[in-house]
Amino acid sequence: MSLIDSLSWRYATKRMTGNKVSAEKMDALLEAIRLSASGFGLQPYKILVIENPELKAKIQPIAYGQPQAVESSHLLVFAAWNDITETQIDAFIQLVADTRGLSVDMLGDYRGAIAGSLLGRPVEDKRNWAARQAYLAMGTALAAAGELQIDSTPMEGFIPAQLDELLGLEAMGLHSVLMLAVGERDAANDFMATATKVRYAKEDLVINL
Amino acid sequence: MSLIDSLSWRYATKRMTGNKVSAEKMDALLEAIRLSASGFGLQPYKILVIENPELKAKIQPIAYGQPQAVESSHLLVFAAWNDITETQIDAFIQLVADTRGLSVDMLGDYRGAIAGSLLGRPVEDKRNWAARQAYLAMGTALAAAGELQIDSTPMEGFIPAQLDELLGLEAMGLHSVLMLAVGERDAANDFMATATKVRYAKEDLVINL
Repeated sequence: MSLIDSLSWRYATKRMTGNKVSAEKMDALLEAIRLSASGFGLQPYKILVIENPELKAKIQPIAYGQPQAVESSHLLVFAAWNDITETQIDAFIQLVADTRGLSVDMLGDYRGAIAGSLLGRPVEDKRNWAARQAYLAMGTALAAAGELQIDSTPMEGFIPAQLDELLGLEAMGLHSVLMLAVGERDAANDFMATATKVRYAKEDLVINL
Repeated sequence: MSLIDSLSWRYATKRMTGNKVSAEKMDALLEAIRLSASGFGLQPYKILVIENPELKAKIQPIAYGQPQAVESSHLLVFAAWNDITETQIDAFIQLVADTRGLSVDMLGDYRGAIAGSLLGRPVEDKRNWAARQAYLAMGTALAAAGELQIDSTPMEGFIPAQLDELLGLEAMGLHSVLMLAVGERDAANDFMATATKVRYAKEDLVINL
């Protein structure tokens, strides 16, 4: 299936059967997220994977009762870094050096570009920048889920502070930005399963200059 | 090529040949962006497509001299809405009604959910929410470019206020958030073309709860 076909196939699934997504498909989905682009390649977020039914039940009220919280196979939380510090940039530069067989000294300009762009920003801006990269990763995740024929629901509709508290994210230096419920559509009970996809026409979205 | 393979193939191309991406491939890329998910499906952005060499030359200094600005085949600007108003929500609800053959009255709950979530926010928050949706669309675009074997560079590195002024975005109710240069990699001059992709290991990115 082409990406266009799989993007057309996917929709924000409202009801799921509870059937499990296979470990192989989950591995491929997480690998796609891992390969996602991000600013400077910094990947300033973590992906929390929740399969435990009791934990999902605690998340459901935080997500305004949305059924996918408990009917999903896995619930992914995209949690962005709370801050961007020299320590994190140094760790990333070390990763680049290790991956490419370079010395850290050879990456001084790259380190300087990242630090110069990010470190001077107010912490709220750094948090927001990190959160935006998580949105980009969500775009990658949804394309991947479509290709893998995994049904999914990207979710902004939850109370971040409550989810952060439940999952202990503050202690991890993280804050929740998005959730992604993955599973199998319950076509019999999901009126959206057969609804026509709504998108602006190309001429309303694209401007040729 | 699987999505995993095409995500591995793609990289933020630093130098491009100037060769043109075919109209067919550009259409497919823009169609993938059009199909991208967004909060409530609102698609609170527009995609500006720039092919004109003179205009690209004016953009290059705004993008800190990055060569892709002029070496690209097309330069896409992801520009988010400056505000989210009742008018825009009504237009979207009309689109849903028209697409699905429903009356606007039948969509009252949906309209109320969107308005209740968004309209009460400070305008800065609404702008930021719209910008985040553009990042999600960028994730879709990069996955699509990879599948189409279009080389691409997502760009945050430009001066938004200057780009907005050059393109007259304020008058369109838009502000620039991201650019995407698309074209063909100049492998002979792009040292990144053969560099190993750097990503955190799965165990450093994914936390199983």
